[in-house]
Amino acid sequence: VDEFGLIAACFKPLSKGYSGSLNLTDDAAIVSLPAGQELVVTTDAISAGVHFLGNEEPALIARKLLRCNLSDLAAKGAAPLAYFLNVMLPTDTTPEWVHGFADGLRQDQAEYSIHLAGGDTIATKGPATFSMTALGVIPAGKMLRRCSARPGDIIVVSGTLGDSALGLISLRGAAGDEYLINRYLLPEPRLALGKKLLGLANASMDISDGLVQDLGHICEESKVGATIRRPLLPLSKPAAAMIKNDEKLWDKIVGGGDDYELLFTVPASKKQEIGALAAKLDLPLTVIGEIIVGDSVQLLDENNKTVPLANKGYRHF
Amino acid sequence: VDEFGLIAACFKPLSKGYSGSLNLTDDAAIVSLPAGQELVVTTDAISAGVHFLGNEEPALIARKLLRCNLSDLAAKGAAPLAYFLNVMLPTDTTPEWVHGFADGLRQDQAEYSIHLAGGDTIATKGPATFSMTALGVIPAGKMLRRCSARPGDIIVVSGTLGDSALGLISLRGAAGDEYLINRYLLPEPRLALGKKLLGLANASMDISDGLVQDLGHICEESKVGATIRRPLLPLSKPAAAMIKNDEKLWDKIVGGGDDYELLFTVPASKKQEIGALAAKLDLPLTVIGEIIVGDSVQLLDENNKTVPLANKGYRHF
Repeated sequence: VDEFGLIAACFKPLSKGYSGSLNLTDDAAIVSLPAGQELVVTTDAISAGVHFLGNEEPALIARKLLRCNLSDLAAKGAAPLAYFLNVMLPTDTTPEWVHGFADGLRQDQAEYSIHLAGGDTIATKGPATFSMTALGVIPAGKMLRRCSARPGDIIVVSGTLGDSALGLISLRGAAGDEYLINRYLLPEPRLALGKKLLGLANASMDISDGLVQDLGHICEESKVGATIRRPLLPLSKPAAAMIKNDEKLWDKIVGGGDDYELLFTVPASKKQEIGALAAKLDLPLTVIGEIIVGDSVQLLDENNKTVPLANKGYRHF
Repeated sequence: VDEFGLIAACFKPLSKGYSGSLNLTDDAAIVSLPAGQELVVTTDAISAGVHFLGNEEPALIARKLLRCNLSDLAAKGAAPLAYFLNVMLPTDTTPEWVHGFADGLRQDQAEYSIHLAGGDTIATKGPATFSMTALGVIPAGKMLRRCSARPGDIIVVSGTLGDSALGLISLRGAAGDEYLINRYLLPEPRLALGKKLLGLANASMDISDGLVQDLGHICEESKVGATIRRPLLPLSKPAAAMIKNDEKLWDKIVGGGDDYELLFTVPASKKQEIGALAAKLDLPLTVIGEIIVGDSVQLLDENNKTVPLANKGYRHF
């Protein structure tokens, strides 16, 4: 594989549409900002055998990586601008694989109006590994934070919870549910929602490590507690069916992670705006509990009893 | 290893001093820019066994990674602002190793006035791998490019060439030269020089893939050719001594890479400014040839004969 030829063939076309990329012909990219705007910058890395199986279609690996970064931008209320990508590949990687990977990026770039601005392709003696840094823009001072939830806020989540964790079980099992598997492979960054949360939500983040753990992050940074109610948690039909067969799977709903739905808090006085927003975006927005004075997350079951939290979320080590 | 505890202990202190890092407590960082400034963004990845040996002191691995990114900013004339770091570690990595790595960053952050703004720590089933994205600031429209060399420009390099490539040979051999090994392990980003090149140099980049290959990049992007003269190439004393013993090592001088010196072109009319600048910075700046009408790099020896270029530089695959 000729590295420079491969980069030119696969990645240069992805930089068209963002002039600051300089068509990937220089050591660095240029990023300029309109007056009154700030950059929101997020970065993530994934490695085969840990964060993805490794045998997925390369296009799907690329799209999920991009979407996970976009999900962070969505959670902060930012609009996508550009991204940087480091691709670390075993030396036996085929050109077809790289083309497939780049093609996945191409598809999602068009869908989410973002372009490649720079990066590096290197060899590694380990499994395929990728690192992405995504830039978004936002009016100065408006970024949605984790640290600004207030007692009395209602806690809201978008979409449905646990699909991705159950999808991964499906993918590993014999009779997989296609809907759940797709939710695992291709999360949907909630960019339109995030934008609408500016001026509405007090605190916001995306759920990547699991509902309970991520809500714990909001509580820790905001110095508050939270009560959430299991009967209120939004489930897809396939997820509800699996839970009905095996109640232990609730652990996956509240702690499985990889949801990439938004988790945000809103002053109770603005509760009715949530219903209107859900209708406008055609996206379920569900109130699952409330922020309280305290320092921990409490999950209540159907009988208002505290559920012991066995799986507090995804630990990276 | 408790991931969140480790990150807090090792990396949070590195984010102090850059308010946009939000002390690493949120999903993303905020980057704002003074009016009239642009961001210069560069990114690099390194993997154990390919880009570094793996048994170096963790502090040295960290410092070289940071310095290589700073070298790109230097080559573009930018001032360091902040960096993002993804750390991909085998699960048997010890906390001591991570502390050592972070300590290396701490040392160089102080030296180069840059801070950690965000990142991710993940597990990998492969060797230790790192990805860094560095941000610099520059007056809008002033970034030094590869594409703007002009026939008649003189070609200048900073410092001495080939030390790093010879240092790597030293490191692998029995009787290593300490000066050369240090040049391999700890390159010196030429930030003060880069800043001074704004308004002086026509084109600029740093030498990471080897003099001939990197000069080839300038020629390709600028649509020019270049003639460089081997007797003019600046060598350190230990490098000159090795060359005297083994003339084949010239290949390492012109193609070994990892120099992290600046390679730039200047209108011939400004030649005397180079001497003054070298004196001011206390850094050798050596004219090694000239940009010509053409499309390739020609290396001439002591007798003005063309040297066949066996090693055209570092290929990543």
